[in-house]
Amino acid sequence: MTREKIDTFKYVVEPFDDDFTGRLSWNVLGKHILACAERHAGARGFDRLNEDGHRFLWVLSRMVFEMYEWPHLGDNYAISTWVRRYYRYFIDRYFDILNAEGRLIGRVFTIWAMINEKTRKPEALNELFGHTFDPYLETQRPCDMQPLSHIRMATESPISTRRAYYSDIDENNHVNSIRYIELILDSFPKELFSSHEVKRLEIAYNTESYCGDSLSFYSQPSAPDDYFVVIKKNVGDPQQPLGETICHSAVTFAPISKLTKQ
Amino acid sequence: MTREKIDTFKYVVEPFDDDFTGRLSWNVLGKHILACAERHAGARGFDRLNEDGHRFLWVLSRMVFEMYEWPHLGDNYAISTWVRRYYRYFIDRYFDILNAEGRLIGRVFTIWAMINEKTRKPEALNELFGHTFDPYLETQRPCDMQPLSHIRMATESPISTRRAYYSDIDENNHVNSIRYIELILDSFPKELFSSHEVKRLEIAYNTESYCGDSLSFYSQPSAPDDYFVVIKKNVGDPQQPLGETICHSAVTFAPISKLTKQ
Repeated sequence: MTREKIDTFKYVVEPFDDDFTGRLSWNVLGKHILACAERHAGARGFDRLNEDGHRFLWVLSRMVFEMYEWPHLGDNYAISTWVRRYYRYFIDRYFDILNAEGRLIGRVFTIWAMINEKTRKPEALNELFGHTFDPYLETQRPCDMQPLSHIRMATESPISTRRAYYSDIDENNHVNSIRYIELILDSFPKELFSSHEVKRLEIAYNTESYCGDSLSFYSQPSAPDDYFVVIKKNVGDPQQPLGETICHSAVTFAPISKLTKQ
Repeated sequence: MTREKIDTFKYVVEPFDDDFTGRLSWNVLGKHILACAERHAGARGFDRLNEDGHRFLWVLSRMVFEMYEWPHLGDNYAISTWVRRYYRYFIDRYFDILNAEGRLIGRVFTIWAMINEKTRKPEALNELFGHTFDPYLETQRPCDMQPLSHIRMATESPISTRRAYYSDIDENNHVNSIRYIELILDSFPKELFSSHEVKRLEIAYNTESYCGDSLSFYSQPSAPDDYFVVIKKNVGDPQQPLGETICHSAVTFAPISKLTKQ
């Protein structure tokens, strides 16, 4: 088992890892973030567990991206990750995204829990693993990010509704946490991505959704270039007509030239 | 420039490269197929072109997958690719998918054209590049696959209709050719993927679709475990009420144990 606190993984923006503008896609960046977390945790004895017929899965509670510069098709980049803090049920995990020269081009802050696959409830981390993150906590590395937003939604009408399908579901048997980000960004006009980049995106996951669920999107501007987007499931269901909130998010865009200049 | 005829690229099924059953996802396999093609072509001087302000893009005309065994989460696999034949406007490109021991677990046959980004019409390949694929043609390597299906659709009612969004669009500014495969498979019930695997999938691309287009799915069984699926765009448009066919596909499922035994 490694004794290092931080792991770094290297990537290239391969053909079709990018969006229509040539920037690294959220699908690929997000999956790398999830995979880096799993590999870092696994190398330190905090793997997904499969004990006495009970499977335990790492799931995201919150995630915040701050992007200072987006990698483009063909660019090399790296992702470093470490755990800064842990609680009974949660860990705070950070990521730096570095360009080919090692310059910081983005930061990601995440909070994770480990859930029992059957009960879908979080488990006390120390009891589950019999050891703690103490030897691996990295508390010195800078990780300053803007505080989390208070996401409030005044509107009661969804701007769109989509169904969750086979291709949206991941190995945890629920809609993939990164897929929600893609769906949230799909609620903006494509033209916006020609002139603007996402500078900051935060998402708080409240409940899971499954294949066949109906997902409704609520969106409102919160400031110039800032939007709140909320996803609810199964709105109009006779048992729960107002639906259930799957996640809250806040998205900040910046004109491309302004962001690239920073 | 390389003088080899065949290139081989190595991969691992990373966390979240798999579907909910643990099998390599179509999204990831398909993107690797596209990327292998681009890298193989590029290394031999047949890159995407950008000349006199005209961009030329490789696009798929047809694609057939035959899978004898699916890689699972954590498995190593490799993709080999070569060009067997070329015509004025098209090339025939093959792929072998190999497991960690080098055993053949899948084959892919593709036909590609290079289109002018503005006219969206194919260009004569020799004239465009000033050289031919002759030195690179690999005609000896076995590549036997079942003949292409005659896909006919009797039904006139779509089983579902979805819109194309930002996350469906790739660097060629149209719905990604692999994304259609995901959308086609989304038209089957998720439970089918618990008991069955896709054994063969063929798709013929007729026309492109773009962000905002409405995509309608028509499906009918053609034999036990065999289905034809057709996607049309903008059905009901006053100019063209019957819509325009984007692609035809044929999908063959096999019970998981049967397929894995082969």
